[in-house]
Amino acid sequence: MTQHVFDQALALAPDDLAAGRFTGQTSAAYWNMVGPFGGTTAALVLQSVLLHPALLGAPIALTVNYAAAIEAGPFEIHAVPVRTNRSTQHWTIQITQMDAGGNPQINTTATVVTALRRSTWGATDAPMPKVPPPSDVAPYGRSPSGVAWFSQYDMRPVSGAIPGTWDGTGDHSETVVWLRDAQPRPLDFASLASMSDMFYPRVWLRRTTRVPAGTVSITTYFHADAAQLAQVGTGHLLGRAVGQQFRNGFFDQSAQLWSESGDLLATSNQIVYFKE
Amino acid sequence: MTQHVFDQALALAPDDLAAGRFTGQTSAAYWNMVGPFGGTTAALVLQSVLLHPALLGAPIALTVNYAAAIEAGPFEIHAVPVRTNRSTQHWTIQITQMDAGGNPQINTTATVVTALRRSTWGATDAPMPKVPPPSDVAPYGRSPSGVAWFSQYDMRPVSGAIPGTWDGTGDHSETVVWLRDAQPRPLDFASLASMSDMFYPRVWLRRTTRVPAGTVSITTYFHADAAQLAQVGTGHLLGRAVGQQFRNGFFDQSAQLWSESGDLLATSNQIVYFKE
Repeated sequence: MTQHVFDQALALAPDDLAAGRFTGQTSAAYWNMVGPFGGTTAALVLQSVLLHPALLGAPIALTVNYAAAIEAGPFEIHAVPVRTNRSTQHWTIQITQMDAGGNPQINTTATVVTALRRSTWGATDAPMPKVPPPSDVAPYGRSPSGVAWFSQYDMRPVSGAIPGTWDGTGDHSETVVWLRDAQPRPLDFASLASMSDMFYPRVWLRRTTRVPAGTVSITTYFHADAAQLAQVGTGHLLGRAVGQQFRNGFFDQSAQLWSESGDLLATSNQIVYFKE
Repeated sequence: MTQHVFDQALALAPDDLAAGRFTGQTSAAYWNMVGPFGGTTAALVLQSVLLHPALLGAPIALTVNYAAAIEAGPFEIHAVPVRTNRSTQHWTIQITQMDAGGNPQINTTATVVTALRRSTWGATDAPMPKVPPPSDVAPYGRSPSGVAWFSQYDMRPVSGAIPGTWDGTGDHSETVVWLRDAQPRPLDFASLASMSDMFYPRVWLRRTTRVPAGTVSITTYFHADAAQLAQVGTGHLLGRAVGQQFRNGFFDQSAQLWSESGDLLATSNQIVYFKE
């Protein structure tokens, strides 16, 4: 069986496994405008932690800062468990590439928290919106954004689709969309991390105007364990994203991702640069 | 004039200013149950960046991971500008304390993004709730949480106050509260960072049950510049916080902070550990 394109993008070779040093290659299949899709970068950061032999528990929180463009080609990831407690573990992660002079340059900084979870009381205060099932919602007909990574996902916008015309009439910033890997792949933490970044820039919707925009920093909280993700399997997730504040070159977007059965699996926030 | 208690808590002495190495002291005035109030820790992280001679621009994003308890006494902060671009700058920060053997132990990891902002189009999609003005809302009569830091703030709960009785009848997790420093102090980035963490654990409200809980990681996005913060001066902010998902020992809480005139100054999210 051919390896899934996402697993190809996630492939990391250990340079020094005990030290958390890995080498990877950017993926053409997940290319964005001027660099890799940020979701795959977030997934790679998480993957370096998940592969580390000192790992305690499962992901709780992931923050990825996109410090500089990642060039097509090889990169190095270094994951360090800086503090291990009885039930939580704190990680710092950096991605570097060599510059023309052969010096490593940091292009991504990140922190991850992992934890051993135990069964407790639980509740949700963010119920899944009532929407038609994915089978009743039409997928995007083609990659409306014109970038490679978009085609790797099956996205079915319930509301707030990428505007068909850029006529400046926008009056809200909320998208609700069914989503999953275009080529079926069982959900795991890495793909959930990636999917948390798959909402197009809210400023495009809010203004119905396409301006240059790029994520500066994303933080994702994981509310599910591996068994819950495995239950989702290759099913759709329902994603919702909305902007809260747009001002002077930056805006935030806040997102939730539910399983089709209505479990809130992850919540995510990002701050995004925009021009003009 | 005596220095404000918050400025006392924020005081950092440069050990090596060019290298971003500072020493501080925990503040008894902002003590929480078993360590400093996390808001002051977040403010100290930000302060180390703001004091750094290489600083570019103003804060955009702040993530603080509470990796281990901070003991009463001295600590060291190390702020490193790992990547400086034309208009953005990426920082990593760590707080350490010496253990009994004289070895530095990391208790806090953090990342900060700063940026030069320019004037652009803007909008808000998270309008301030319509509530009575702060003069019409009664402050908490005493520190209902029994901890020192709480008394440093003037908090006037509009809804979702700390429960007076722990009777297990809770059915929502939303608090709306007017807040400012108890001893007047003009708003700045450090105090806004601190105030982003001043919402008591959502699980207490949701369950009307007081269980052990502590922030594991907080991320705050700054939507205002220094001039806007200065305009707020010593006025109240309106804060709103709500939980989205509670499950297996962790929950998130999502917060907004508006100026009294309705400008959304900051949005913040955190993931919190809870027991049982």
